[in-house]
Parts: sequence; C-alpha cells; structure tokens
Amino acid sequence: MSSMGEDEEVSSFFESSPPLKKMEDILQKLNGFIEHNSSGGGRRIVCVTSGGTTVPLEQRCVRYIDNFSSGNRGAASTENFVKAGYAVVFLYRSGTCQPYCRSLPDDPFLECFHFPDNSNIQVHSSHVEAVKMAVMDQQAAVAEARLLKLPFTTIYEYLQMLRLIATALKDVGPCSMFYLAAAVSDFYVPWNSMTEHKIESGSGPLDIRLAQVPKMLSILRTTWAPKAFCISFKLETDAKILIDKATKALGKYKVHAVVANELSTRKEEVVVVSSSGNVVVRRDSDKPESIVEDNLIRLIVDRHSTYIKESHS
Amino acid sequence: MSSMGEDEEVSSFFESSPPLKKMEDILQKLNGFIEHNSSGGGRRIVCVTSGGTTVPLEQRCVRYIDNFSSGNRGAASTENFVKAGYAVVFLYRSGTCQPYCRSLPDDPFLECFHFPDNSNIQVHSSHVEAVKMAVMDQQAAVAEARLLKLPFTTIYEYLQMLRLIATALKDVGPCSMFYLAAAVSDFYVPWNSMTEHKIESGSGPLDIRLAQVPKMLSILRTTWAPKAFCISFKLETDAKILIDKATKALGKYKVHAVVANELSTRKEEVVVVSSSGNVVVRRDSDKPESIVEDNLIRLIVDRHSTYIKESHS
Repeated sequence: MSSMGEDEEVSSFFESSPPLKKMEDILQKLNGFIEHNSSGGGRRIVCVTSGGTTVPLEQRCVRYIDNFSSGNRGAASTENFVKAGYAVVFLYRSGTCQPYCRSLPDDPFLECFHFPDNSNIQVHSSHVEAVKMAVMDQQAAVAEARLLKLPFTTIYEYLQMLRLIATALKDVGPCSMFYLAAAVSDFYVPWNSMTEHKIESGSGPLDIRLAQVPKMLSILRTTWAPKAFCISFKLETDAKILIDKATKALGKYKVHAVVANELSTRKEEVVVVSSSGNVVVRRDSDKPESIVEDNLIRLIVDRHSTYIKESHS
Repeated sequence: MSSMGEDEEVSSFFESSPPLKKMEDILQKLNGFIEHNSSGGGRRIVCVTSGGTTVPLEQRCVRYIDNFSSGNRGAASTENFVKAGYAVVFLYRSGTCQPYCRSLPDDPFLECFHFPDNSNIQVHSSHVEAVKMAVMDQQAAVAEARLLKLPFTTIYEYLQMLRLIATALKDVGPCSMFYLAAAVSDFYVPWNSMTEHKIESGSGPLDIRLAQVPKMLSILRTTWAPKAFCISFKLETDAKILIDKATKALGKYKVHAVVANELSTRKEEVVVVSSSGNVVVRRDSDKPESIVEDNLIRLIVDRHSTYIKESHS
C-alpha cells in the first residue's frame, strides 16, 4: 500500500510539472551519446548530477528557494570518471562549477587574459595551466563524446531530465551508473497551488507552506533503471546524525552506496556507507593538488567493476 | 512615531546580522576609489547594485530563498555609466552577469577559445569582439579606477555593504548617485530566530514564517546619503499594477525616479516614473545591437546633471 502511495505521488508530481522545454533536442543528443559510447564503444556510462535545484514560489518566477551547492564535487568527479574511461552525462545546475574549470579564478576574464598588441590574446603565466585545462581538456572530452553537458535550474526540470536519462540508459544495464551529487530540494510548492504573480510585500509576515518532494530515488531504483549501479549523497551540517541518516537512506532506497559528507569538512573527507561497511575516504593531505574525489572515484569505480562482474555471473 | 519605529527596525536588523567579512579590506578599496575619483578627478560616482539577494533559512546555510535576477540590467548600465564619464561602484551578486561580459556565450571556455599548437591560445573569430570587450574594456575600466567591483550573496551582506558605500559617499554630495537595480528580498528569517542546522525532511509539509525586511531606502535617503541622486527600481509580473506601485514607491521613499519594469518586456522598455511625469524608454528596435540601457542611462545622466546644477544654485 505504501508503495502504491509513493507511485501516485510521483505521477501527480510529473503531471503537474510545467513541461520540459527543448525535450526533443535533449533526447536526440542523449540517445546519440549513449549509442556512440555503449553500442559502439562498449564504454561504461555514468550520469553525474551536480548543483542545487530551485523551487519556484511563483509561476512567473521572481522568488525561489534554492539549495546551496557550488557544484565542485560533481565537476571534480566528472573529470575523474572521464580519466577512468567512463562517458559522463553531466546533469548540472546552470551557472555552477564546470568540469575542468575548477582552477580558474572567480573572475577569469579580468584575471587570466590580456591583449598585449590589440590582436593576439595572451594568458597570464600564472593561469596558463588552469586555462589550458578549461579549454583543451574540456573541449577534448566533449569532442570525443566522452562528456555530455545538460543544464537544469528548477526541481521540475531536474527530475524530468533525470527520468529521461534513466529511461534512455535502461538498456545499458549494469554498465550504467547514477552518481547523484546534486542537492535536490526536499520541499516544493506544487505548481497548481502556486500564485501566478509576484507575491506582494507590505502587509506583515509571509507564511509559506511547502509540500514534500516525492522521493524519486526509489522509483529510479525499482522502475526507471533497476540494473544501474546507483550512488546517492547525504549532506548534513551536524556530524552527529550524519552516518545514521546515510545508513537509513541506504536501507530505504536500496542504493549501492551512500556518500556521507558534512558541510564543513566535505573537501577533506567523506564516508562511503554501503552494505559491506563504512569506508572513510580522505584527500592525500601530503599532496597539495590532491582532492577527495581522486580517491573517492577510484573506490566507486572498483565497486562498479565488482558489481558488473557479479551481474554477469 | 512611524519613523521612529522604522529606525528601530533598521537598527535591530543590523545588530542581529552576522558581521561582514573582510570589512577593513572593502573599506580601504572603497575609500581609495572615492578619493581618486572625487577629490582627485572631480568625477561623478554612481553605486550600481545588481543581482538578487539570498535569504538563508539555516545559519549553517544549505537552503535559502533567492530573488531571480540575471544581473544583466546592472551590468549593461555600468558599461553605459563608465562611457558617460562616471566612476562606478558595482555592488553585485556573486556569479551574476558582469560588465563587458554580456556578449559572451553561456560556456565561454568551451566555445570561445582553442589552443591550435598547444602553446598559443586563440579566440574563435565569431567571438573575438565579445572576448576583447570582456578582457580589454573591463581591464581598462578597472585599471583606470573607473570601476570597483564588490560582490555580495546574502541580504545581510548586501545591506551592510550598501550602508558602507553610502556613508563613504556622503561627502561627494549631489555628484554621487545610487542606481538600485538589485532585486532585494522583501522577506527574511531573522538570524537569531533561525535554526542552526539543516532543516530535517521526512515528516510532512514545512511551514516557514518570514519577517519583512525593513525598508532601507528611507534611511538611505534621510540619513546615509541624503544629498545623493537616487534611482530605485520596481519589477512586477503584472503590468496592470506596475505604474501604480512605482508611483507609490516614488512618494514613499522620496527617490528622484523609479524605473518601472515588467518581467516579460523588461529588455524592450521601461518607464521612468518621477515627479515630472512618466517617460517610456525603449531600445532602438531598428538597431539590433541596441539595448534599453543605452537610452535609459542617457536620460538618467541628464536628470542627474540637472539635479547637480539645481543643488549648486
């Protein structure tokens, strides 16, 4: 009965969502990418989600609720998956951190370049490596069809696109992976109950009632792409409840691992929670360039290899 | 009595705000910039605010309410003010549109550049003008101390920085201007009543009560910088109430003009509402490169000239 209730919530969420724009275009790119890498190349494909979703408070949206996420984890993980031989569908929040661009300064056009003679652009020597990576490595990954970038903004766009991708990856089976690093809102204002125009100010406090977003992770696991290897994330600010909440999510959603991270230490270490126990993954603190994603993706790729082997036996 | 109440609300807002980081650094930059342009150069100085403010829902912030604003209006206006001879303090939301960068594609490092021989970067011919502007014009404006860029994210940062700038500009008197294009939240969660940790999901709907942000525009006009020329903005999604709301704001805050814009047509036209009547300002639709800010800033600069003349007579 409980499962029926969840399915209905999910259906009702999608039925009331504003329809995805450019859906045909997205589908065409996606199917071409999967065809090229899977049928053609026999390559593993991972969908990395990254950045936060917005929840509009008005239909003609001026105000929205957002989830903090720089997108750094998703971008760094994408680079490591490409390095490990994967093709990556990078489903990212518009404006967040891009793969191969993490080392650029905040204001790259002010800080990286100059035009010494009004015709040839030059890169300041301090930023040559960062710019080369942003340009060459990124372009190579896209040109070789190893990286497909798909942007979203709202929770409606995110969940509709995730469903498209999962459905398109269904036939890739155990060689596909979902690495769900996006910060997805738990609460939303159902589109049909939303005010059309900007909420008026000027008369006392504002009360907002938010409904829970149906948990799509269960549907992804049971229906959309049941054979895919699936990694979810749990972010908390309170270290005391983190592992407990990650362990509960592991059991509830039947994902293959939950990456638990605490807001203030998330760049130093994460804990990979799975049925085989909890593994603490740290960055190599003796190497200044090292990031936690280098070691995290190595572990996840190993686990995925084991999963593929077991699926075929 | 009503004015006393407002003052108290403002004091209480600032007292409960988390203190601004790097305040000494900001003040030093700001005072140097004003000194250089005003005392040294006798140049007019405008503070352009741009982008939306965030309202954190948790102290260790994961979720926040945001106001939609690309920052395009503020960036385009800044370029036009610099062209008109002004020095601009650009108080902008981190990550929003930057002056001289409006013509860059969404993903400039993927689309603008290539490294043909692994050592010299080149710009694709289709993007040469956009990149030159982003690099040369922007760097020139900053190097000549005609443009000072100061980023904010939260409503707390925005209002504290606006107060710093207004106080620093006080002695510039009528030659200073505030051009308040930022989308500032009307509602917020007072810091002291905010939950420390991430709001837990999992048990039904979430109710949020938001308090009104005290109206700082009155204090800016009466106390912080009473002699500055002051332009505020009114954005609505409902054209029917727009002019009425702009006219009310003009009377209430005693600003010199209110720029009224409707969300869906804001790139085509705005209405400048002032005590001398309402003027519709449109972009030159026969010139494809024309933007509404070209004509808007021309009008505002003329009004400012008149204001300076009248102040001195």
